[in-house]
Amino acid sequence: MALVVQKYGGSSVGSAERIRRVAERIVDTKKAGHDVVVVVSAMGDTTDELLDLARQVAPVPPAREMDMLLTAGERISNALVAMAIHSLGAEARSFTGSQAGVITDGAHGRARIIDVTPGRVRSALDEGSIVLVAGFQGVSQTSKDVTTLGRGGSDTTAVALAAALGADVCEIYTDVDGVFSADPRIVADARQLESISYEEMLEMAACGAKVLMLRCVEYARRYGVPVHVRSSYSTKPGTIVSGSMEDIPVEQAIITGVAHDRSEAKVTVVGVPDNPGKAAQIFRAVADAEIDIDMVLQNVSGAATGRTDITFTLPRTDGPAAVEKLTKLQPVIGFTQVLYDENVGKVSLIGAGMRSHPGVTATFCEALATAGVNIDIISTSEIRISVLCRDTQLDDAVRALHAAFDLGDPDGGQAVVYGGTGR
Amino acid sequence: MALVVQKYGGSSVGSAERIRRVAERIVDTKKAGHDVVVVVSAMGDTTDELLDLARQVAPVPPAREMDMLLTAGERISNALVAMAIHSLGAEARSFTGSQAGVITDGAHGRARIIDVTPGRVRSALDEGSIVLVAGFQGVSQTSKDVTTLGRGGSDTTAVALAAALGADVCEIYTDVDGVFSADPRIVADARQLESISYEEMLEMAACGAKVLMLRCVEYARRYGVPVHVRSSYSTKPGTIVSGSMEDIPVEQAIITGVAHDRSEAKVTVVGVPDNPGKAAQIFRAVADAEIDIDMVLQNVSGAATGRTDITFTLPRTDGPAAVEKLTKLQPVIGFTQVLYDENVGKVSLIGAGMRSHPGVTATFCEALATAGVNIDIISTSEIRISVLCRDTQLDDAVRALHAAFDLGDPDGGQAVVYGGTGR
Repeated sequence: MALVVQKYGGSSVGSAERIRRVAERIVDTKKAGHDVVVVVSAMGDTTDELLDLARQVAPVPPAREMDMLLTAGERISNALVAMAIHSLGAEARSFTGSQAGVITDGAHGRARIIDVTPGRVRSALDEGSIVLVAGFQGVSQTSKDVTTLGRGGSDTTAVALAAALGADVCEIYTDVDGVFSADPRIVADARQLESISYEEMLEMAACGAKVLMLRCVEYARRYGVPVHVRSSYSTKPGTIVSGSMEDIPVEQAIITGVAHDRSEAKVTVVGVPDNPGKAAQIFRAVADAEIDIDMVLQNVSGAATGRTDITFTLPRTDGPAAVEKLTKLQPVIGFTQVLYDENVGKVSLIGAGMRSHPGVTATFCEALATAGVNIDIISTSEIRISVLCRDTQLDDAVRALHAAFDLGDPDGGQAVVYGGTGR
Repeated sequence: MALVVQKYGGSSVGSAERIRRVAERIVDTKKAGHDVVVVVSAMGDTTDELLDLARQVAPVPPAREMDMLLTAGERISNALVAMAIHSLGAEARSFTGSQAGVITDGAHGRARIIDVTPGRVRSALDEGSIVLVAGFQGVSQTSKDVTTLGRGGSDTTAVALAAALGADVCEIYTDVDGVFSADPRIVADARQLESISYEEMLEMAACGAKVLMLRCVEYARRYGVPVHVRSSYSTKPGTIVSGSMEDIPVEQAIITGVAHDRSEAKVTVVGVPDNPGKAAQIFRAVADAEIDIDMVLQNVSGAATGRTDITFTLPRTDGPAAVEKLTKLQPVIGFTQVLYDENVGKVSLIGAGMRSHPGVTATFCEALATAGVNIDIISTSEIRISVLCRDTQLDDAVRALHAAFDLGDPDGGQAVVYGGTGR
C-alpha cells in the first residue's frame, strides 16, 4: 500500500460531469489499496469570474481580501469532488489549506510555504478516508490570515503535502500526456519522456516548458518527492520527474529536450558610460521595480568612445515598466538611449549529458545556422544552452535543434535511456 | 462612539453595484464615529447555484461537505464588500466565521452557536478597521470542521457577535422598512412599528412574520441585544426590537399586530383508542422523524366508542413524511385512519396587553365570525391567540382582525404606544 498525492487542474474539474470522472479515478486509486490525498484547483473559469467581480467593486482590491476571495474557488471544487467521491460509496473529507496545515509567509498573492503540519490530513487518512486539500492556499504564520501561493500554487501544494506526508509519489494530472522532448504542436515527432531528472526539469520549466511550474519542481527536488505528470483524460503512463542527473549513465544520456519561450522581450541600453557601477545602476533600477531579468549581454566597450551597450531580456509584461523606469534614470546614469524589442523568442537545449560531451555547442550553432536562424544572445548553464532569436524564426529553431540532436528518433540519442512509449 | 453590528442580506449585495452602495452605508456609519462590524449573507443566487452544483455531482451530498461548499458564498460576498470599503478609503478586514470565533456544535447544516470568542474581531476594531464577518457559518467545537447555522443563520451570527462584543445595537438590513402590524401586501393600512418587545417579536416570528427568524430573536432576548430592523434601500427609521413586555404600560399597549402563516398543514388521526399513552405514541413517531408540530387538538372522547381524534399542524414540507410514518404505525397504535389537509392557514393576534385586558378573545372570535371565517383549531399563549382556518379565508381573517383591533388607525389602539412613522 502506497500513499499517493494527486493533483487535478481546473480544466479537469470544469463541470459536474468532469468532477464525477475525476472522482472515479480517485476512488479507483483508493480501491487499488492506496491511501489517497487529492489537491484540486478551482473549477474552470471560477478564478477569472471572481477576479472580474473584484475589479467591479474596487479598482485596486487589497491583496489580503483578494486572497480571501479567490480561495473560495478551491473550497468549492474540493467540496464538490468530496461529494462526488462520497456518492461512489467511498469516504472523503475536504480541508482548506489552513485546516491541512499549509503554513506560509504573509505575502498575499505570492506567499511561500514555510511549513506543512498535516495532522488532520493524517488522522483522516488513518480513519480510511480519502482526503481533499484545497490547493493554492495557506494560512499566514504571523497574521493567521488566508494567503494564496500565486501561479502554479496548486502544484506546489500537492508537492509540499507529499513531502510532509512522506508520500510515495505526487501525481500531477494535466491536459497533456506528460513531458515531451519539444512542444508537439511545433515538432511533429516530439516524443514523450518516460522520466527526467529534477535538474533537467528545472531547466525545461525555466526555459518555457509549461507542464510544471519551476517552483513546484524546486520543492520536489529539495524534498526528493517523485512527481508523476499524467493526463487527466487517459491512462497513459506519463512522465516521472525524479532522481539526480548524476544518476544518469554518462555514456547514454546526452540531450533531453528543446524548450522555447515566447514571453520575453529584449531591452538594450545604448551608450552606457564605461565606468564601474553603471551596469549595477541599471540592474538595480530594474530590480527595484520587482522585475526579474533573464539573459544579459554586455558588449565589449569601444575604447574610442568610452561607452558600451547593455542588453537584457525580461518578461514581456514587465517591458513597459522597465523602459519607463530606465528612461526616468537616463540623466542620472548618462546613457544615450533605451531600445525595446518584443519580437524575440528564446530556444533552449537541455540535457544532463552535455556536461561531458564536447561539441554540443558547435552542433547547436551549426543546426541554427543551417536553418537560417540568427543568434542574438547566447547563455549557457552546465546542462543548458539558450539563445535569443527573432520570434518569427523560433519554430524553425526548435525543429532544427530537435532534429540535429536526434530527439525524435526512437533508436538514437536520448531515446536509449528515456525510451518512450511513443505517441 | 458606539459599537454597531450591521447585517446585510443576500439581495442587498446581489450585484457589484449594490455591494458598492452597501459599502457606502458602512463607511458612513464609520465616519459618524462608530466602530462597525458587518455580517453579510451570500450574494443573491450564489447559494442556490452551489446547491445545484452539489446535486449534479451527488444525489445525497454529505452534510459536512455541503457546509464546506456553501460557506464559500459568504466568503466571497464578505471579501467583495471589504474591497469596496477599501476603495472608499476606509480600512476593512474580512474574517470567516471560524476566524471570528463563532464556535458551534457539530450538527452540519443546522449547527447551534455554543460560544463566540471574537478576539481577532476586537483587535481589528482596536486598530481602526471596519470588520466583516461571514454570516451563517461557524466552526465545530469538537471536530474543528466548518459548520452552517441553517435558515436565518446570518441574522443569528450578527446578534451573537453583537452579544459577544457588547455592541450597542445590531442593525438587520432587509428589503422591507421594518416590522409591521400586519403584512402590508394583505392589509392596506398596516402600520410600521417603531418598537416591539422581544416577547412579542418572538410570537410574531413564530406565527409567520418573516422579517426576523425566531432563533435570532431568541438569541437577542437572551443576551439583551437591541435589534434594529431597517431597509437596505432607504434611510427610514425602521423598528427597534428590545425590552421586555413588562416595561410596556399596561394601560396603553393592547395589541401589537396580526401575523399569518401559509406554510402549515393539518393532520388528523381518526379513531385513536382512548387509552393512556396512545397520544404519546403518535407524537413520538412524528418527533422521531424530526418533525416539529405546532397546534394540537384532542377531541373529547366519545364514551360510547372509546375512541378519540387527535389533530395537529406541522410544516407543509414535512406533511408527506409524517403521514407515511403514521400509516406505518397504524397496526401498532390501532387508530382508524389518517387525514391530511394542506388547505389551511393560521392567523395570530399578538400583544403584550392582552394579558390584562379581558374580552380580547371575544372580540377576536366575533371579528372572524362577522367576516365569515370558520375557526378550525384555536391555541393561545399569554400574549397570543392563534386560529387555524381555510387557506382561502386567511387574508379576510387578517384584515378583519387588523380592523377589529384598530391597528391601522393612528389615533387608536397600539398606535398610542408604538405610534409609527407612517409608510
